[in-house]
Amino acid sequence: MALYVISRRLSGGSTAAQPSEALLLALSTRSYSTLFREERDTFGPIQVPSNKLWGAQTQRSLQNFDIGGERERMPEPIIRSFGILKKAAAKVNLEYGLDPTIGKAIIEAAQEVADGKLNDHFPLVVWQTGSGTQSNMNANEVIANRAAEILGHRRGEKFVHPNDHVNRSQSSNDTFPTVMHIAAAMEINSRLIPKLKILHSSLHSKSVEFKDIVKIGRTHTQDATPLTLGQEFSGYTTQVKYGIDRVMCTLPRIYQLAQGGTAVGTGLNTKKGFDVKIAAAVAEETNLPFVTAENKFEALAAHDAFVETSGALNTVATSLMKIANDIRLLGSGPRCGLGELILPENEPGSSIMPGKVNPTQCEALTMVCAQVMGNHVAITVGGSNGHFELNVFKPMMASCLLHSLRLLGDASASFEKNCVRGIQANRERISKLLHESLMLVTSLNPKIGYDNAAAVAKTAHKEGTTLKEAALKLGVLHSEEFDALVVPEKMIGPSD
Amino acid sequence: MALYVISRRLSGGSTAAQPSEALLLALSTRSYSTLFREERDTFGPIQVPSNKLWGAQTQRSLQNFDIGGERERMPEPIIRSFGILKKAAAKVNLEYGLDPTIGKAIIEAAQEVADGKLNDHFPLVVWQTGSGTQSNMNANEVIANRAAEILGHRRGEKFVHPNDHVNRSQSSNDTFPTVMHIAAAMEINSRLIPKLKILHSSLHSKSVEFKDIVKIGRTHTQDATPLTLGQEFSGYTTQVKYGIDRVMCTLPRIYQLAQGGTAVGTGLNTKKGFDVKIAAAVAEETNLPFVTAENKFEALAAHDAFVETSGALNTVATSLMKIANDIRLLGSGPRCGLGELILPENEPGSSIMPGKVNPTQCEALTMVCAQVMGNHVAITVGGSNGHFELNVFKPMMASCLLHSLRLLGDASASFEKNCVRGIQANRERISKLLHESLMLVTSLNPKIGYDNAAAVAKTAHKEGTTLKEAALKLGVLHSEEFDALVVPEKMIGPSD
Amino acid sequence: MALYVISRRLSGGSTAAQPSEALLLALSTRSYSTLFREERDTFGPIQVPSNKLWGAQTQRSLQNFDIGGERERMPEPIIRSFGILKKAAAKVNLEYGLDPTIGKAIIEAAQEVADGKLNDHFPLVVWQTGSGTQSNMNANEVIANRAAEILGHRRGEKFVHPNDHVNRSQSSNDTFPTVMHIAAAMEINSRLIPKLKILHSSLHSKSVEFKDIVKIGRTHTQDATPLTLGQEFSGYTTQVKYGIDRVMCTLPRIYQLAQGGTAVGTGLNTKKGFDVKIAAAVAEETNLPFVTAENKFEALAAHDAFVETSGALNTVATSLMKIANDIRLLGSGPRCGLGELILPENEPGSSIMPGKVNPTQCEALTMVCAQVMGNHVAITVGGSNGHFELNVFKPMMASCLLHSLRLLGDASASFEKNCVRGIQANRERISKLLHESLMLVTSLNPKIGYDNAAAVAKTAHKEGTTLKEAALKLGVLHSEEFDALVVPEKMIGPSD
Amino acid sequence: MALYVISRRLSGGSTAAQPSEALLLALSTRSYSTLFREERDTFGPIQVPSNKLWGAQTQRSLQNFDIGGERERMPEPIIRSFGILKKAAAKVNLEYGLDPTIGKAIIEAAQEVADGKLNDHFPLVVWQTGSGTQSNMNANEVIANRAAEILGHRRGEKFVHPNDHVNRSQSSNDTFPTVMHIAAAMEINSRLIPKLKILHSSLHSKSVEFKDIVKIGRTHTQDATPLTLGQEFSGYTTQVKYGIDRVMCTLPRIYQLAQGGTAVGTGLNTKKGFDVKIAAAVAEETNLPFVTAENKFEALAAHDAFVETSGALNTVATSLMKIANDIRLLGSGPRCGLGELILPENEPGSSIMPGKVNPTQCEALTMVCAQVMGNHVAITVGGSNGHFELNVFKPMMASCLLHSLRLLGDASASFEKNCVRGIQANRERISKLLHESLMLVTSLNPKIGYDNAAAVAKTAHKEGTTLKEAALKLGVLHSEEFDALVVPEKMIGPSD
Repeated sequence: MALYVISRRLSGGSTAAQPSEALLLALSTRSYSTLFREERDTFGPIQVPSNKLWGAQTQRSLQNFDIGGERERMPEPIIRSFGILKKAAAKVNLEYGLDPTIGKAIIEAAQEVADGKLNDHFPLVVWQTGSGTQSNMNANEVIANRAAEILGHRRGEKFVHPNDHVNRSQSSNDTFPTVMHIAAAMEINSRLIPKLKILHSSLHSKSVEFKDIVKIGRTHTQDATPLTLGQEFSGYTTQVKYGIDRVMCTLPRIYQLAQGGTAVGTGLNTKKGFDVKIAAAVAEETNLPFVTAENKFEALAAHDAFVETSGALNTVATSLMKIANDIRLLGSGPRCGLGELILPENEPGSSIMPGKVNPTQCEALTMVCAQVMGNHVAITVGGSNGHFELNVFKPMMASCLLHSLRLLGDASASFEKNCVRGIQANRERISKLLHESLMLVTSLNPKIGYDNAAAVAKTAHKEGTTLKEAALKLGVLHSEEFDALVVPEKMIGPSD
Repeated sequence: MALYVISRRLSGGSTAAQPSEALLLALSTRSYSTLFREERDTFGPIQVPSNKLWGAQTQRSLQNFDIGGERERMPEPIIRSFGILKKAAAKVNLEYGLDPTIGKAIIEAAQEVADGKLNDHFPLVVWQTGSGTQSNMNANEVIANRAAEILGHRRGEKFVHPNDHVNRSQSSNDTFPTVMHIAAAMEINSRLIPKLKILHSSLHSKSVEFKDIVKIGRTHTQDATPLTLGQEFSGYTTQVKYGIDRVMCTLPRIYQLAQGGTAVGTGLNTKKGFDVKIAAAVAEETNLPFVTAENKFEALAAHDAFVETSGALNTVATSLMKIANDIRLLGSGPRCGLGELILPENEPGSSIMPGKVNPTQCEALTMVCAQVMGNHVAITVGGSNGHFELNVFKPMMASCLLHSLRLLGDASASFEKNCVRGIQANRERISKLLHESLMLVTSLNPKIGYDNAAAVAKTAHKEGTTLKEAALKLGVLHSEEFDALVVPEKMIGPSD
Repeated sequence: MALYVISRRLSGGSTAAQPSEALLLALSTRSYSTLFREERDTFGPIQVPSNKLWGAQTQRSLQNFDIGGERERMPEPIIRSFGILKKAAAKVNLEYGLDPTIGKAIIEAAQEVADGKLNDHFPLVVWQTGSGTQSNMNANEVIANRAAEILGHRRGEKFVHPNDHVNRSQSSNDTFPTVMHIAAAMEINSRLIPKLKILHSSLHSKSVEFKDIVKIGRTHTQDATPLTLGQEFSGYTTQVKYGIDRVMCTLPRIYQLAQGGTAVGTGLNTKKGFDVKIAAAVAEETNLPFVTAENKFEALAAHDAFVETSGALNTVATSLMKIANDIRLLGSGPRCGLGELILPENEPGSSIMPGKVNPTQCEALTMVCAQVMGNHVAITVGGSNGHFELNVFKPMMASCLLHSLRLLGDASASFEKNCVRGIQANRERISKLLHESLMLVTSLNPKIGYDNAAAVAKTAHKEGTTLKEAALKLGVLHSEEFDALVVPEKMIGPSD
Repeated sequence: MALYVISRRLSGGSTAAQPSEALLLALSTRSYSTLFREERDTFGPIQVPSNKLWGAQTQRSLQNFDIGGERERMPEPIIRSFGILKKAAAKVNLEYGLDPTIGKAIIEAAQEVADGKLNDHFPLVVWQTGSGTQSNMNANEVIANRAAEILGHRRGEKFVHPNDHVNRSQSSNDTFPTVMHIAAAMEINSRLIPKLKILHSSLHSKSVEFKDIVKIGRTHTQDATPLTLGQEFSGYTTQVKYGIDRVMCTLPRIYQLAQGGTAVGTGLNTKKGFDVKIAAAVAEETNLPFVTAENKFEALAAHDAFVETSGALNTVATSLMKIANDIRLLGSGPRCGLGELILPENEPGSSIMPGKVNPTQCEALTMVCAQVMGNHVAITVGGSNGHFELNVFKPMMASCLLHSLRLLGDASASFEKNCVRGIQANRERISKLLHESLMLVTSLNPKIGYDNAAAVAKTAHKEGTTLKEAALKLGVLHSEEFDALVVPEKMIGPSD
């Protein structure tokens, strides 16, 4: 951490390759040459912290993009996906003549990246070059230096070259969109979908559990005809089910990999077949059905697939916002709200109102939904602003989509575990409200007509009486007829 | 109308200057030469409906931009503002040597446009060139032909020339942003602000009317400590008041006019002082404090002022969404909701549920709010996509802002007149809920501490008793102490 | 039209059932009783223009929602879809016992609505009750009065009853979402997709036409390695192709109809099987594969399907924004821009700069894209704000989606016809730029390594020489080697 | 860090107060009782890591909201603002009778929080309860335990009580919005505005530096009349200047503090004057003109002030997007683009194309702008969804606004330092393009009329000649007349 700060501070001037004197004095216990080593790129030499595997281009980015601080580091799924991709590339490059010793070392080093073991060596933030070149070079440099070490060479010597070996047959312009797709597909399959499925299953269970509880319906927030609490939850269940479908529907385009397009989509500096092989290698590593993109020009210049998937997440957010809102309103109270649901009590709800318990899981979830909607706009703006052969909003789009995926997955799981699973119906309250409602009058329509039924409801409302009292008073029905027709339990489905 | 359709249909091919044979046959009763006249521009001759004042460039736009149909016509406030601007320009041009006969005729014709008398002669849609050039030419052509007629000349003869006379010292690039600002300023001052003020005043009246009605507060949708209904409405009142302030805050930049910048902001083909004079002339016409823009390059190339004003409208929409949501929830029922407010009944609420009355004004208003939020994103996207010396999302930005202004103003007025004004407090219901609440326990904190107070509330909740019963049972207070402390009417403000 | 204005003005007070005296005087030629007739609903009698087919509830809405003016009328596809639905409902109701005389008259009247013949009788705006109840009643009233007329009865007599006959077994809460889905599906199938396919086909033709034109690539807006102009257009082609796929992917959920759910989703007041039959009847009318919604609670309470489809349109907008931006930049000039494409000249481009021609079709299209992005946010906000058994942002969501569909379809067609179809390559300019580029150096990487190749490019850049001159000067290659390696035509794909 | 992970893992079940056996075994070197201590709240006892200062409620939140991981921790400016607020509250509470020993210890502990010294003791994420209650309690618990330690007492003993002492006269419902406002005001004043001012100043310097460089203007991306490069930069300068104004305009509402409203805005459990005193105390701590909110109900239930400020940031993002886009397009090349600007070269631009340098600072900045636009939508959605007396999207709104502030500030500074400051004009290229342009013809309008001037430009364009050649050929002007009229240097302003 300390060295991270130091290396950041070195960025005082963009040409500064030497730390300030004051800083050197502060580093009292160890000599400068121990703390830093020299790395080089086409811009010349630069000092890099000795204990870090990254090289010159990473260091330059660190100094040139002091934006947002550590929170804004490239998301871990991107880093890990670079490990997967670079391993796959080395495998394929071996087939095309890469030195086997070097190739094997790259594979070993890349596996460490894929396993998250070298995360500390990826210090760059999202807000860098829009192609993600600097993060691609970060991966190339770390893997090159680590592979060199594995082979007994020193960091910075370029025994394994970041461009010529690790990045062989690749360009940032095809690797970065490739890792975007790998990371998104993995997060969708391993995090979001499983968690949405658990939520779906839990809502479905509640729907079954509550299937016989007849309650008042509400439309326009006003009293309406009855339904069962189970039916109400079946709506939520269906929303989540369709949400899963929606996200899955977008995967065919996420599974298309840009790799093999190199700089502008033509595949310059690759051999024929490279693109197909590398997609197959990534598929093997991940157990996901990746294929090479049908059109590499589209795959580099646009990220419509991300805009599309974000659109699906936006729809999921819309659904979850609705569900969470309903649950907190139905659980409002305990004495002055609707009070139909009893939500689990997880923590004290107020620092001033003793005994207060709040629908906090609904709140966390709805905040996540708002964030997902916002991220979707950011992704849309980025996606629409590509120019010519390359969209240069890649890191932002990746960051936002992965953010949305992570938050939606985690929040769904939290909501399920700490709220939905424990929801209880307040049967007494539900029954009381049901029988006070005026909208049961609707079942009189087929018998006495809409206009008469309206008169009954209005009379009861005005005079504060029951529907039956009003109906009898208006003389539109006999008592027995009323009792036979106005039965909430018969109002929850079509008639035979 | 018929001819509008005909002229649109002529657009079968972009070079088609002649209607199809079939069409001509259809026009049986009158000869073709009566129905159409020839107009010309630098692209050559083109047929124009005889009964319309527009010229060649308008006709080309009509044929080349068949997008969205008549609903998408340039908003009327833009048309009228063109009338104002062209009148002002002619006035100033007279000072700089414009032929007085022609100048006066232009002024007269422009006034007719400003008065909305020639709206039928402005057929172009929003989805045209992004500079609004075609609508500027539409104005120039209509005014030129009308002025020529006033002077006894025929349409299409160019006795008064649309470019050399009507558009003298102007460019679409400065006229269109100028009319955008004129239209926005007028709509804000004459429509939005007066209607928001009426809403503010009505909410304030309710706040005063309800000042003594103590009710339960709700936080997290859960029961909380009490406040008065008047205090609750004072929050809404303040939101609207600040909303007015927010919109007004943006006016100084709306009052800056681009006119005088001509093609790229330099003012080429104008005389020194033209920009200041024309802003003064527009100010005189409108009684609004327009001034010439401090920097014309900014005024043509960016429309940040529109993005800013739209941001203020977005905030107003946020406020109104909150207020309308609260009102419909507080008015929910009549028997199974919160039921604290009684909303005016304006129309039957359901085609199936007799007697149902819904908070429809809240619904119209919240739909408007959502539309305003959406328009704001469209404006933001358009505003961010300018290139070099000219932003070419002008008509869309104008259309969206004027749409938002109109809808917010009208919906605020409708909401005020048909809902807020008639809201009544359901005092019985409010009182019942208040006294059942457990959150009155909060006033015990200073006396018995947070932890003991929590125990009292939890006991009452669990056992379904009153707070007092629970407090006495737990032995934390005497009966008299409880009665002295738990007085809702004393809980609605700080203590002395 | 005149009477529309009159009837709107009658709304001076919400209880006003009589026009003002002044107004009556203005209606000099005809007596009041000729101009107006009385209609009634559960709120009592109300005056309605005699020449209009609508009834009491439509009239109330007209008076209570004076928001936005005529431009804001419910979109025509919604009106027509009501015709389709009411016809289908009458057919099915005949099977369930509806009087055949009345049923047939309803079918005939509904067909007139479906054909757009009665559009003038649908005066209501989008900004009404959020369930669309008033537009449903507008349809019921117009069809009831028209059917009564067909049967020789008078308007307002309710020989055919709007609720009991036309709306039989229906609720606004299921009819409105049903017409939303019918209208969207029809617009997608008949307008958007065909127009996108034409655009796709035209881009594909250009891709083939330009397949042998090698040009400089651009990444980060900077010179990059070459590709063919055909390859560049193949990217656009693929974007549009996927866009079509994306929209089509959402149709299965659009084809699900809410009809049969009635008030809250339970199907109260319908018979078993009604929902399946009516979906089949709508499918027959439209030749589209509509089915009854799997879960009616979801279908009324949420419009996630609209949010999802809007997300697909948002992605299409993102694609088209990118394509149109590229085309205008590649066509920039004529002398001081990139100048690689020659765009069709459709109209004069400037009111001040003679001879200027602008990429106006790109501008109209990109403005449409911004609007679609904005509408998407409005739809998202509306979709997320449903409460309990009913989402009450229906008319706004319908209006925005249909707006986006119409604009995207029309603008794609206009862009294709007036721009893409006529694009020509400026071969001379393209060739000149290609051979000046430094990025051809990339093909040297495999031979001399990245670092040496960089040195060559930097030397040429610094000294203003050609790459070859720089390479020879640095001694990294022989002249023949250079000529063999740096061949743009060989740089447009992987090597063997 | 390790313990953080452990404590998070303890959350396996929401009731789990004991770590698993396996975990205990893993903690081999130290006994369990050393690693954890017991804390209690109204829900009972819970195990807390011994080396952390937080208490029971923080621990519960940590276990109940496992959403997003460490990156999602409450932003540091919020934590520090809690320090400032709790110190101010203790000061004022001393005046109202708080035990001086305890009060002074609280002040000391709160100062440590304000200084960022206790950041590690604030583990909670943004995605918690929507009131921020848990972060308020985190602050109360940490300060209480730390104050107790200062006074020689042990953690968890509640010698200083988190609610009764540290949170005295406060509620989460007023403290959290207060710290939102403190944090936003401090970030605006100390980060955003200073950095925007530097950018403004740098752009202004360039405007002056380039004031004599006449260049071709571009409208619709097409060649237009000339202006100076200095004029072009003056537009950017003005945009940033107005951006600063726009943000400053929103501060009066940000300076209003909710503190003193307590639970629902009434100020229950405070003394009269408490609100004014605490705002003054915060003002003193921060040197910023904070005042007590005019209406506390608005201040708790809505965060329109945040929506408004976010709207200003959205406008700034719009401006910066435009500026950065222009700069990268004007700097496009080096040989196949516009090439008018030479941008600083900060790092290698491509992992495959040697020698490539990219406008990376423009890319980072435009990505930031897209994120800010997205955050704005999230804030808008959150702001519009408040219910009753409390908006419960507070932490998300705070997080998004602070994110936007930080990113815009940092990216502006980076853009200025690493790009704008070093921009050079490519005078040779600019001059070449200027003199090739056809749009200089515009200056002929006043002399020969628009139509003739158009003919000249079109002839030159068609025949590939100069304007002069075309003018002479068409015979509209003599050679000397042409030379006298077409002088770019005379076309950059109005004439005398």
